[in-house]
Parts: sequence; structure tokens; C-alpha cells
Amino acid sequence: MIVILKENPNQKQLNNLKNWLVSQGITIHESQGVNQLILGLVGDTTGIDIDLIKALDIVEDVKRIQDPYKNVNRKFHPLDTVVDINGLKIGGGHFQIIAGPCSIESEEQIVEVAMAVKKGGATLLRGGAFKPRTSPYAFQGLRQDGIKLLLEAKKITGLPVVTEIMDISQLDLFADVDVIQVGARNMQNFELLKKLGTTNKPILLKRGLANTIQELLMSAEYIMAGGNPNIILCERGIRTFETATRNTLDISAIPVIKGMSHLPIVIDPSHATGIAKLVPTMSLAATAAGADGLIIEVHNDPEHALCDGPQSLLPETFAELVKKIEKVRAAIA
Amino acid sequence: MIVILKENPNQKQLNNLKNWLVSQGITIHESQGVNQLILGLVGDTTGIDIDLIKALDIVEDVKRIQDPYKNVNRKFHPLDTVVDINGLKIGGGHFQIIAGPCSIESEEQIVEVAMAVKKGGATLLRGGAFKPRTSPYAFQGLRQDGIKLLLEAKKITGLPVVTEIMDISQLDLFADVDVIQVGARNMQNFELLKKLGTTNKPILLKRGLANTIQELLMSAEYIMAGGNPNIILCERGIRTFETATRNTLDISAIPVIKGMSHLPIVIDPSHATGIAKLVPTMSLAATAAGADGLIIEVHNDPEHALCDGPQSLLPETFAELVKKIEKVRAAIA
Amino acid sequence: MIVILKENPNQKQLNNLKNWLVSQGITIHESQGVNQLILGLVGDTTGIDIDLIKALDIVEDVKRIQDPYKNVNRKFHPLDTVVDINGLKIGGGHFQIIAGPCSIESEEQIVEVAMAVKKGGATLLRGGAFKPRTSPYAFQGLRQDGIKLLLEAKKITGLPVVTEIMDISQLDLFADVDVIQVGARNMQNFELLKKLGTTNKPILLKRGLANTIQELLMSAEYIMAGGNPNIILCERGIRTFETATRNTLDISAIPVIKGMSHLPIVIDPSHATGIAKLVPTMSLAATAAGADGLIIEVHNDPEHALCDGPQSLLPETFAELVKKIEKVRAAIA
Amino acid sequence: MIVILKENPNQKQLNNLKNWLVSQGITIHESQGVNQLILGLVGDTTGIDIDLIKALDIVEDVKRIQDPYKNVNRKFHPLDTVVDINGLKIGGGHFQIIAGPCSIESEEQIVEVAMAVKKGGATLLRGGAFKPRTSPYAFQGLRQDGIKLLLEAKKITGLPVVTEIMDISQLDLFADVDVIQVGARNMQNFELLKKLGTTNKPILLKRGLANTIQELLMSAEYIMAGGNPNIILCERGIRTFETATRNTLDISAIPVIKGMSHLPIVIDPSHATGIAKLVPTMSLAATAAGADGLIIEVHNDPEHALCDGPQSLLPETFAELVKKIEKVRAAIA
Repeated sequence: MIVILKENPNQKQLNNLKNWLVSQGITIHESQGVNQLILGLVGDTTGIDIDLIKALDIVEDVKRIQDPYKNVNRKFHPLDTVVDINGLKIGGGHFQIIAGPCSIESEEQIVEVAMAVKKGGATLLRGGAFKPRTSPYAFQGLRQDGIKLLLEAKKITGLPVVTEIMDISQLDLFADVDVIQVGARNMQNFELLKKLGTTNKPILLKRGLANTIQELLMSAEYIMAGGNPNIILCERGIRTFETATRNTLDISAIPVIKGMSHLPIVIDPSHATGIAKLVPTMSLAATAAGADGLIIEVHNDPEHALCDGPQSLLPETFAELVKKIEKVRAAIA
Repeated sequence: MIVILKENPNQKQLNNLKNWLVSQGITIHESQGVNQLILGLVGDTTGIDIDLIKALDIVEDVKRIQDPYKNVNRKFHPLDTVVDINGLKIGGGHFQIIAGPCSIESEEQIVEVAMAVKKGGATLLRGGAFKPRTSPYAFQGLRQDGIKLLLEAKKITGLPVVTEIMDISQLDLFADVDVIQVGARNMQNFELLKKLGTTNKPILLKRGLANTIQELLMSAEYIMAGGNPNIILCERGIRTFETATRNTLDISAIPVIKGMSHLPIVIDPSHATGIAKLVPTMSLAATAAGADGLIIEVHNDPEHALCDGPQSLLPETFAELVKKIEKVRAAIA
Repeated sequence: MIVILKENPNQKQLNNLKNWLVSQGITIHESQGVNQLILGLVGDTTGIDIDLIKALDIVEDVKRIQDPYKNVNRKFHPLDTVVDINGLKIGGGHFQIIAGPCSIESEEQIVEVAMAVKKGGATLLRGGAFKPRTSPYAFQGLRQDGIKLLLEAKKITGLPVVTEIMDISQLDLFADVDVIQVGARNMQNFELLKKLGTTNKPILLKRGLANTIQELLMSAEYIMAGGNPNIILCERGIRTFETATRNTLDISAIPVIKGMSHLPIVIDPSHATGIAKLVPTMSLAATAAGADGLIIEVHNDPEHALCDGPQSLLPETFAELVKKIEKVRAAIA
Repeated sequence: MIVILKENPNQKQLNNLKNWLVSQGITIHESQGVNQLILGLVGDTTGIDIDLIKALDIVEDVKRIQDPYKNVNRKFHPLDTVVDINGLKIGGGHFQIIAGPCSIESEEQIVEVAMAVKKGGATLLRGGAFKPRTSPYAFQGLRQDGIKLLLEAKKITGLPVVTEIMDISQLDLFADVDVIQVGARNMQNFELLKKLGTTNKPILLKRGLANTIQELLMSAEYIMAGGNPNIILCERGIRTFETATRNTLDISAIPVIKGMSHLPIVIDPSHATGIAKLVPTMSLAATAAGADGLIIEVHNDPEHALCDGPQSLLPETFAELVKKIEKVRAAIA
């Protein structure tokens, strides 16, 4: 970390700063610039809040040279992480397609969709049991019963399953779930992240609607600092002023994250756009940009599609899409 | 809710839609517009997801006439809610100033700040025990010990206290806390909101960094639907492209919320701007815009200010500000 | 346009509204909904400002059924527009790659880059003569001299050229320019758009940094309403809170625009990301998403790269990229 | 400017960089930090594009110590600028209220509103002759005829007038206009700014919908660098994800700008919110935050309000507001 001081800093405040830094275990290397004194801080600065120092009257600016994330940082772990999901691999060239309905509604529904997406080329099954809903009056999911139905579909199809946790207290119900999803609204639920860090379950960590890529990596760092390296990042759209899509899918997050971190990154085009007819195109774009996987909503029955999300694909559209995805993967290989 | 259909809708899909609506307890009133058939839906539509219907092929658009929030809606509760905090009132013309340090660090610190802000005109004491921090390596607060110190400061000064909860499992520790704060990052932690709805504690609910005003009201609706009407809303800045301030304080949220809801609304200029020297000005602006209160960071000792946030005021600056706030309140009365 | 009135509207105001609508040449079709009176407006409503009507006390909401854009609307022109650039076609399956330096600096430079990008697979040459720069102290481009040099490079390589206009008064200088670019900051310079509508030059219209897709189409509508249908739209990144990239490239704009309009759409990954190493990946993503072309910055000489933008590719990187682009195009064909 | 190099930079590239900097008239002062070499650049760096240097492979980061704006910078001009509008002063404690209709429609209308706002307390008259409209089919203003009517209203009431220019070619028409407004969409129409810099007219420069405060100051710098110091800045709302208001009024821009620049800053609450009933509250907030003035839309006749913007106040509401504004000004004095 480099601290650039203002010209002629108050000496008492400067001494306060230096003493405090030393008390934090930091060694200070001073170098006199043309008008400014510059402090080079040596040691572990990851616990130092850059904003605190920036705000001091005597400080012109602070520049972090060390990234604030360590475990998830590609600099210290140059090779791609490959997350093993009971034998199924993702990352480091392994590409997986997660598909399934928005909400689990009945055994018939989840099993039917599970078989359809398996046939269409999905390698993991998704389905929501605990549903984060803006309105307290909207369907909140089948909750523990939903998890049971999802595990039933897993048994029948053999597909590993991904489903969302909303609170620490639900963790016991996820014993047989293969990948635990942390939703966008919980990306900075730090107590939950800490708890998940103590498990060894693969975690699918979604980027918050208004979170920067660095913040996403810091949330992953919470999990990894707790001892769990099995993290799959997920970009699912960010909030902007554009209203034609539900959110704006930040495809550039793929190469940016690949530069910063070794963790696999998957894309959720369904929630990002909120519009089924945009999902195939955005899936191909994400694939071309080097995503390690996709998470796509598929519903079972157009006659009852009302209960599914407006972003859900029909199984046959999904199956056609998977073929195109494979072609794009081959093209960029 | 009004559903505007496309011209010449597919009759089978139209029947599916109508049957589904009826199954949800809705009565349908059809009226033939010039080119479009329009369905007027009568009944409780708060549980119907507008996006689901909008996404149907046969639907041009859906317009919600009923707001999705009921309990917090001013239409159904025209008078201002006055939240009673152990005798101290906020809302309906009652204005309160909450002040204190960002984090509780020691008994000496919290008691000293508590006495200083009381003297300066604060009527409630704030201080963080559980600290939501972006980095797992940053100080996470004194946690339960912090709550004990805060309650000690309460005993000494008589000021009611406000502090943040981060997880349901911490609730027992808040028995003697006067106002439970839900932070911006937990605004859509729906499981936590549901739990807080079962208490009768005043809840200070902060707007998320990227949440709309309607979403803030929906989160308040979660608490109120659970039976707890003691909610104080808080605007603390939203994320925009501007970098001169940490976030952009949305002052217009005050009159907008006052139009939509009967709940009191307070402003947090400290976190919104992240810059101490902007706090007085923005406090006055918020007061002039009709806020029901302010929540302001104050630190105790400029010599050790490094441990406080860059947005913290000195006690004497705070005391001067309180006097100006009173003048502005008189000016708009 | 459908106007939904509030319950029990003031009759005098309602009559004012109806009379005014009739005075604008609109026929009104009333239909009584369950609680609301609904006015269906028949006729050309494109000139009616929806916000004006929405703001009336008696109006609950207004829904535009007709899009506000006509000439650029795919509904009225279902086939893709193919823009002819002196024999070179773009749109309707014709894909073009525009490449060149950020700024034209010298004859040697522009000719050298022109030959390099031609060899690498570019089909049009770009280069800035008039440069919109945030700072008045930054290099403002070679201006008319730059145009001359660009035309020199055109003569030598045979590549049609694209360059930016910044003011109506410069138009005469663009007589031999093949495609006139309107930059993001001028997207809503309506006087300039009107003037360009009176020419028959192909116009490359860039989306503003904070403009919605509909606003981009409305700006294209200005040009087309003036009589010039030769418009190529360009997405070049929008402003969001993310700071890892200069802007956020909105790849979903490609399928969204293709649904709304018949005009070709090209992507500028160089300005969107501002980082050369992200350009290849984002070019492939844009191609996979169905873009009609790309506009890519290429500089000539790594030794002097300082004068080029940080987003510029080396000619050899560009040439490799073009090969991959072709593969992705084949994959999605 | 301080350039922090990466560890072990390529020597050839480093020499290229140093030579280039020297060629730009910069003196380099090297200081060896703990791991990094740091270059302190001395001289006029305002013309150096920070992004260009940042993008070099050998550069870790660049920190501008000098602000990129000089003429408008408070550091070099500590006292508030007071703009003189034919004897009427704004800035440096002088507060002015600009009011009038959105568009000039007829002599009767503009004269009637002018007399009403003068009576209500306005000190300048605004009215749009050239109207930037998203749609080519919407009313584009009375243009030159509108200017004539505005000047007629000026003659009758004695109020100085403010109206918007949209293109350089219109400048001659503004000879008798007192303040030339540059709209948000033209904030970075650099050719127009340069031209206005050659006049000595007071310029009301509006912040673009997605422009940072620094960019606003850079646009003002264009005008001032041209020789015209008579600039009044205007904040009129920025684009965010919030939809309850048309834009989000960034009140914190007032104290931020006052710290960065000596220029007066006025607030336009009418366009920012787009909702008449929010205008009084936001006017008071802006006043409390230290604005040097307000620009408020007022229409003449509720019976014909349809032609005015939804953000326009009635003359009597405006007159009441002015009284409250005076009270708030006294409270913060």
C-alpha cells in the first residue's frame, strides 16, 4: 500500500498515522517525492481499511498495490480452480450446463423437467425450494418439502442438484444437495458466507445486483478464508438505467474475473434478462466470452407456463441451444 | 390490475390465462378497447407476480392499479405512523437525532461519545457491534461484547440505543436494545425480515445500495405483515456512476416515501457521502426536505480518529450542526 | 395509447383532456373498466408526450401501445436493413469489421495501420480526426488535416473510411468520407441529427453512455425522418457503478435492438472496456450474440503505443482475432 | 502526477515512457519505493491522458495530484465567482430564482407567466425556444420566434432572460438573451462549448444525465479556457435505477462543487424530479445545502396545463415556495 501525503503535512497527525500503522504490524518505507512524502507500507495490509486512511486530513491519496483478496487471487494461485461436484468437474476447461425450473412446484413437475433437461444436455439440475421474493404475499417456495422433491429428481435422473439457501438455520436441509447457491441478495450476508466457509460443499455465489466484481471476489474470499475452496462465481446481471431488460448482463465480468481470480465463473442469462427469447443469444455470447458454465431456466409445460418465470425456455428450445453452445465452444477452443 | 392484451390473442392461451386468474381468486371484468381487449382484475392481486403475466405471448402490458404493499401504504393508513421508542417518539412531526461512533471499540470510547452526543443534542445513541465488512480480514466488530458496552453507555446516559443485527441467530442479544437496525446489505434478507416481524421492537430498515423505493417499502411490508408496525425507514445513499461521494444520497426519497407510506423516514448522511465535511450540509438538506430524523456518525477523539470512519464528525461540529438543524426545522414548520 | 383514469375523475379536467386530445387529431374510444374509465386513443400519437398526460391529476397511468418510433421500427419494416457503403454491405447477414487507430496522427501512421488492418481482415478503416476530449488541454485531433490523411489512406488501401463529426459546420469536410460517425456524446445533438437526415451518407450512430435503447432508436428516427435510411447503430458501453471496465458493454442490446428495429447494429468493444486485453473476448461475445459488425481500435507500433488508446490491439493480435471471429460466425450460422 | 511502476519493469518500455514524458515538457523525479519505482512528474500535466499511461504494461497505477481543471479550480481562485447578469449578481452569497415555463408558446403565455413569476419573487425569467426533444415528432419549440417572444416578455417585466442554445449556428439569435443555457444533452458538445468560450455571455451549464461532477467542471473549463469566466453550473438530476422520480437529484453535488470550484451552482428541481409536487421540497433541500439559485418551471394556467410539463408549479404555489426559500436561507445564514 502506498500512502501519498499532502504537501507540508501536520507533523503530529503524521506521527499518529505512523504509530498506528506500526501498531498494526506494518513496516513503513518513506520516500520523498518531488512535492509529496510517500509512505510505502510493507506487511499484510489486507486488514487495513483504505478509506480510513484516505480520509485523514494529511493524506492526498492511498493506493493499494496488494489486492485485498488473497485466497481467491490468481496471482497466488495461477492455475484455474476445478471444482469437483461429486465427480463432475467445473472450471479449468470443464464446462457445465445447469438447468431446471425457477421454483420446485410438485414431484411431477421437477422430475419431468429434470428428465427433459438431462435429455437436452444439462449436466446439473437447478430448482428453487426457498424463494427470495420481493413481496411477502408471493409464493415463498415449497421450502423443506421442495428440497425433498429436488432430491427425488436427483435420484431418478442422477443429475447433481443446485438450490438456494437463504439463512444459516436452513443448512442442515442441504446435506444431500450437491451445490449450495447463495443468491444475489445474500452476496453480502457475511454471517452466511462465514458459515458456508466451514463446510466443504461447492458454493454457487451470485453477484449482487449492484456489486462490483471486486466485492464479489471479497465475498468469495469470506468463504475461502473459512476453509472452503469450492466456489463457483455467477454473474446474473447488474442494475442500470436500461429498462428493456430486467438487468444488464455484464459479459465483460467473465474475462475480468478470469484475470483476477482462479475460480470458475458461470452466467445466468435467464435472470439477467428476464426475457426467454433473449436467453439463447446471451448464452452463446457468454460461452464465446469463455464462461465455465451456464445456469438456464427451463419449464416443463407450455400449458402451465404461467407458474414459471417469463425467462424460462421450453425443453426443446433448450436442447437446440445446447447444440449451438457446443459449436461455439468448439469455435473458441 | 389491468391486463392489456395484444390484438387477436390466441384463444387457447387467453382461456389458460383466464382460468388461472380465476383459480387465484380473481374476478375478471372484460372491456373491449379500440384494438385491444382489456381485462380488469378484481380481488386481492398483491400475490400475483406482474412479470409472469407480462411475459405471456398474448399480453401487451399489465398495469398494477393496486400498489403491491398494503400495510405500509399511506392510502390505507393516511395518518403518519409515530414509532414509540420507550417513550421517545419519531414520525408525525417528532424529529430525532441518532448519533454515535461507527464501531463500538471500548467502554471508555462508547461512553465518552455517548455523553458527548447527548450534550450536543442527540436523542438516541448508535454504535456498531456486529459490523458488516467487505473484507473477512477487517475488524468484524466486538459482537456480543460490543452490545454489552453499548447497553452500559445507555445505562449511564439514559439514551436509547440503535445497533445493527446481521443474522437471526443474534436476536436474543438484542433484548435490551431499543431499536434494531437492518443494514443496507440485509434489506432483502427476507428470512431475517420475517423474524423481526414477529417481534415488537422498533426496526430501523436501511435502503439497499441498489434498491428502489418500492422495494424498500416491500421489505418493510415483510416486517409489518408479520405483525410488527414499528418501522423506521432509512435512506443512506444509492450506487451511481458518480465517484466524488461514496454513494449518492437520494434526498428526493423523503418526499416520495412520505407520499407512498405513513412510516417515518430518517437520513444517514454519514454513510451516504463517506466524507465528514459533507455531513453537515447534507443533514440540513435532509431536514429541509422533511426527514423525521438523522443518523450521524460522531467520533470521540481526533487523536485516535483513525479507528473511526472518514465520515465521522467531531463532537463540537456535531453540536453546532444540531443548532442549525433546529433553525432549519423552524424555517420549514 | 391507452389512458387509465383515476376513480371519479374531476369532470371539468376530463373534458379539458378530451378536448385537447381531439384538437391534436386523436379519436377517443371510451371503455368503462371495473373501477376506472379507460380512454383508447386512435390516430397518430407519436407526437404526444406521454409524460404530460401521465402528470394530470385525473390520470392513473398512460400506456403507449404504438411505439414512439416508426421509420426504424421492425414492425413496419420486418426485413433487415442492409446499408450499402459504396458497394460494401452491412446488415441482413452481411458482417463487417471496422478497424484503425483512435486518432489520426500522421500520414505514415494512418497508412501503416490501414495496410495492417486490411491485411488482418478489416473491411473498413476508422480513425479520429475530430476528437471529443473531456479536457480542453488534451489533443483535439488533426481536424481537417486528419480527414485529408484518412482519405489518403483510403486511396492507398481502397478501404472505405469511418470518422466522427462533431458539429454541423464540419459537414462539408465529410464529402468523401464513406460513413459519418456520431459519437456517444452527440447521440442527442438533435440539430446535428436533423442535418444528417438531409444527407444520404451512411451514419454510424453510437449509443450515449447513459441512454436507453429506446432513446438510441429515437435518435435514429430523427435521421430517418429526415429522409436518410442509411443508419448503422453502435453499442459502446454504458455507465454503471462497476469500475473494473471503463463502461459496461451491454451485449444484450444486440438481440433487443434486433427485435425492435431493422437497422444493423455493430459493437465497439475497445471503447466499452477501455482495456486492450478484454477486446478479443468481448468481440467474440458480440459476434456470438449476432452483431452485424465490430469496430476495433488497432495501433501500428508498440514502440509508440503511448499515443494510442489503452484499448488498442496490435495488428497481429487483431489478425488472430479476425480468424476466431470467423469461426464463431460459422458456429452460430 | 505520480506514476507507480510494477516491480521489475521492462527497461526498454520504461525508457520509452520517460522519453515520451520529457518530450511533453515534463520533468521526472524518481523515487525508489519499497518494491516499486515511483515517478513524480513535474510540470503542466493537464494535457496528459492519465488512461494512456495507466494502460502501459509496466505501470501499476497513476495518480493525478494536480486536478485536470485549472481555471475553474477553487485552489487557484479561492474566492467565489460572482457572475454579473446585467447588474444582477449570482454566486458569492447572491442567490437568484429563475422561473418560467418549459416552452414558450405564445406572447400572451410568456408575458403572463413572466409577470406572475416576477410577482412571486423570481429574479430571472426562463423559457424554452429551442427544445431538445427525444422524438422528432414532438414540438421542437418556436425557435427564433420563441426568442423574440421571450425578449418581449423581458421588455415588459424587466426580468433578465435565460434560454437554451442547441447549436453554434443559433448564436446570433442570442444577442439580447442575458444567460445562454447549455442543456444536459449538450454538456459535452465540445465545439459548442469552445464557441461559447469566445463570447462574454453568462452561460448556464447543465450537468449531463450521466456525467460526473469532474466532467461538468471539465466542460466549464472548456468555456473558461476560451476566455469566458461567466459560468453558472446547474445540477438537474442524474440517471440511476430508481424509477419513482424521472432522475435522481444529486444534492450532494452542491457542497462537492463548492469544494472543487469557485463557480456558482444552481439546482433545477423541476427536471430532476419530473413531478410538480416534489419541486417545493427539493427546492428547500437545495437551498439548505447552499445552492446559489434555483431554476423552477412555472406554468400560467391550470386550465391549459396540458401543454406545460408535469413538473410545472402554479404561480401561487411558486410564490409560497419563494417565501419558504427565504426562511431557509435565513436559517442557514
